[in-house]
Amino acid sequence: MLKVGVTQGDPNGVGPEVIIKALAPEGMTELMTPVIFGNKGVFLAAMQRLKGENFHFQSVSSAANAKAGKVNLVNVGEGQVSVTYGQPSAEGGLSAYQALEAAVAALKAGDIDVLVTAPINKSAIQSDEFAFPGHTEYLEARFAATEVDDDAPASEEEVVADEEVEAAADVAVDATAVGDVAGDAADITPKRTSVNKAQMILFNDDLRVALLTTHLPISEVSSHISEENLTVALENFDRTLRRDFACDRPRIAVLSLNPHAGDNGLLGSEEVEVMIPTLRKLQERGLLVFGPYAADGFFGSGEWRKFDGVLAMYHDQGLAPFKTIAGQSGVNFTSGLDYIRTSPDHGTAYDIAGEMIADPSSMREAIYKAIDIYAARERYDEMSAHPLHIKSKS
Amino acid sequence: MLKVGVTQGDPNGVGPEVIIKALAPEGMTELMTPVIFGNKGVFLAAMQRLKGENFHFQSVSSAANAKAGKVNLVNVGEGQVSVTYGQPSAEGGLSAYQALEAAVAALKAGDIDVLVTAPINKSAIQSDEFAFPGHTEYLEARFAATEVDDDAPASEEEVVADEEVEAAADVAVDATAVGDVAGDAADITPKRTSVNKAQMILFNDDLRVALLTTHLPISEVSSHISEENLTVALENFDRTLRRDFACDRPRIAVLSLNPHAGDNGLLGSEEVEVMIPTLRKLQERGLLVFGPYAADGFFGSGEWRKFDGVLAMYHDQGLAPFKTIAGQSGVNFTSGLDYIRTSPDHGTAYDIAGEMIADPSSMREAIYKAIDIYAARERYDEMSAHPLHIKSKS
Repeated sequence: MLKVGVTQGDPNGVGPEVIIKALAPEGMTELMTPVIFGNKGVFLAAMQRLKGENFHFQSVSSAANAKAGKVNLVNVGEGQVSVTYGQPSAEGGLSAYQALEAAVAALKAGDIDVLVTAPINKSAIQSDEFAFPGHTEYLEARFAATEVDDDAPASEEEVVADEEVEAAADVAVDATAVGDVAGDAADITPKRTSVNKAQMILFNDDLRVALLTTHLPISEVSSHISEENLTVALENFDRTLRRDFACDRPRIAVLSLNPHAGDNGLLGSEEVEVMIPTLRKLQERGLLVFGPYAADGFFGSGEWRKFDGVLAMYHDQGLAPFKTIAGQSGVNFTSGLDYIRTSPDHGTAYDIAGEMIADPSSMREAIYKAIDIYAARERYDEMSAHPLHIKSKS
Repeated sequence: MLKVGVTQGDPNGVGPEVIIKALAPEGMTELMTPVIFGNKGVFLAAMQRLKGENFHFQSVSSAANAKAGKVNLVNVGEGQVSVTYGQPSAEGGLSAYQALEAAVAALKAGDIDVLVTAPINKSAIQSDEFAFPGHTEYLEARFAATEVDDDAPASEEEVVADEEVEAAADVAVDATAVGDVAGDAADITPKRTSVNKAQMILFNDDLRVALLTTHLPISEVSSHISEENLTVALENFDRTLRRDFACDRPRIAVLSLNPHAGDNGLLGSEEVEVMIPTLRKLQERGLLVFGPYAADGFFGSGEWRKFDGVLAMYHDQGLAPFKTIAGQSGVNFTSGLDYIRTSPDHGTAYDIAGEMIADPSSMREAIYKAIDIYAARERYDEMSAHPLHIKSKS
């Protein structure tokens, strides 16, 4: 049974509430073993307000000691963290950070199998230790850091990392078979950091949206539209669609940066100068990438239903239509890491924090989908580990 | 009965097809008198392919001679324009331009009451005469030009323009009553050009989205976020919601430029430095403007349902969610002009042009809504013309 780590998030937002609501139903602990990382007092306070929920947790000293059949909680911080619903606080930010650090350590140690994070307040959490615009960038840095010491004795973690390199090399070999890329395993290895780059993917059962740029001011988006960034993002997206979403030959739509796909250069040159040539190159290598499509018509016409994934150039371009379509069912997944992390697609929702009216659907979906992705990735890696086998199509 | 001018648009796109399909049903000419501006040969060619439609038109020398009970067509261009469905051509661009020019002249002459435009190909139409990124900007320039000659003898057109100034002054007087603006009619008059600036509004029965910037590369959007532009856009939007959409006290939501509403400056400074202070000033003047809201959560949570209008900072931010919600029912309206112009919210759709499978719903809605807006504006202007009357609330 998988151990699912769940971080508390900002204690002044809806995080603890949606965790309690998502984990309260009786069947949940038969599906997996939940391990909450959070401040005990924060959860007791939320439970006070949520008297209707039949929720119990068991305190454990570490995730390694988590009990099956129970909701486990690893306490973080000393004493009771004061809760000020709807108001950011330094204490709350620190508590969210401690929960995240403890969960990441447990993930690296193999004490939990997947990570689900509740929303943080990005201003409150900033400190010398946490100087990132969001979870995605933080996790990318934290996980990348473990891979620097290549001479360390082989651990389970390193085996995973090596498999990634192998799988990445596979993609390059496939590519040479089709097109003009002089890639081999040696070429791929130095690229590992960028190929492993974290990618933010929002998805539900109908739609998967990846973002080329995530937490970036609009004024800086254009300067990130480069052949290299597009190539890395599309290779990553293609790979995660195969490996984590069990798409056999993923078809990916790329949204244009500018309105009307740049109208042949009248409304911006990035499409003509960068995007279209890059997509051609990738198509020649065998990737099923299409576009660039004007975002408004693409979503308005229902064209998005024809693709396994959609790559948006920036945050709101992908997420505003996605959330319009997904409603409460959306899940955020950080792909391209050695570990699986999902989260609900909403924020701290300060406007309703403490009222106990938050909808736990997205948190519950985040838990389910983390388990699904774990299973898909295991199957894929097992198949890929025996390349001479004839793959049975599922 | 209103005379509705309809321009052919790009002859190689779906424009003529959706016009024919929209105007073919028998009841349409009982509702209004349609006057198509387009090349006769282009329509005959489309009718050939659309044999199932029971469509007839009557050629007239000018809109002034349009017959009630008939679909009228004012021919533009000499001879037959060659149609190359799905392929842009200079000849097609010229034909689209001629149709637009003829319709605008008829509108200014009072020979038609409202204008509905079919989609143009923005590359093909470019010339010395038409150097605009789209209809909205072109119409703004064409209509603004007529107002320069303030000493010309009073025409019907000028009366309309004067009423606009008066109404704008009313807004300023309202404002002084509430807040700190030392505005009076004299202050407003010189601002007329900018207050009258055209604004692109996409709407259906549930949602109205206005754009601060329209046909602009993403890299240039940030530099247009200024107090002046926001103020003008919100004053215009407020006014058109009252005058053209019969909202008594319109509530307007403003979307943030940057993701997560800039996260208190972490993801861009425009919210903190420009948007929030400007909204405060407008609120103090009595405008019901709210935000800035992060676009993804705003649409995902259904928050948009609580507002009469939504102001987006750029094209895809507003239009991708709008079209996701509106599907085929969306209409584009150019507000802030002395004349009423609507259009369908789709483009030339070259991918299906000539196949005769285009959906005419948006064109039909564009015609209906132009008539609705004309009626709302007449009622509003009538009420506003007698300021001492006690207004009856509808």
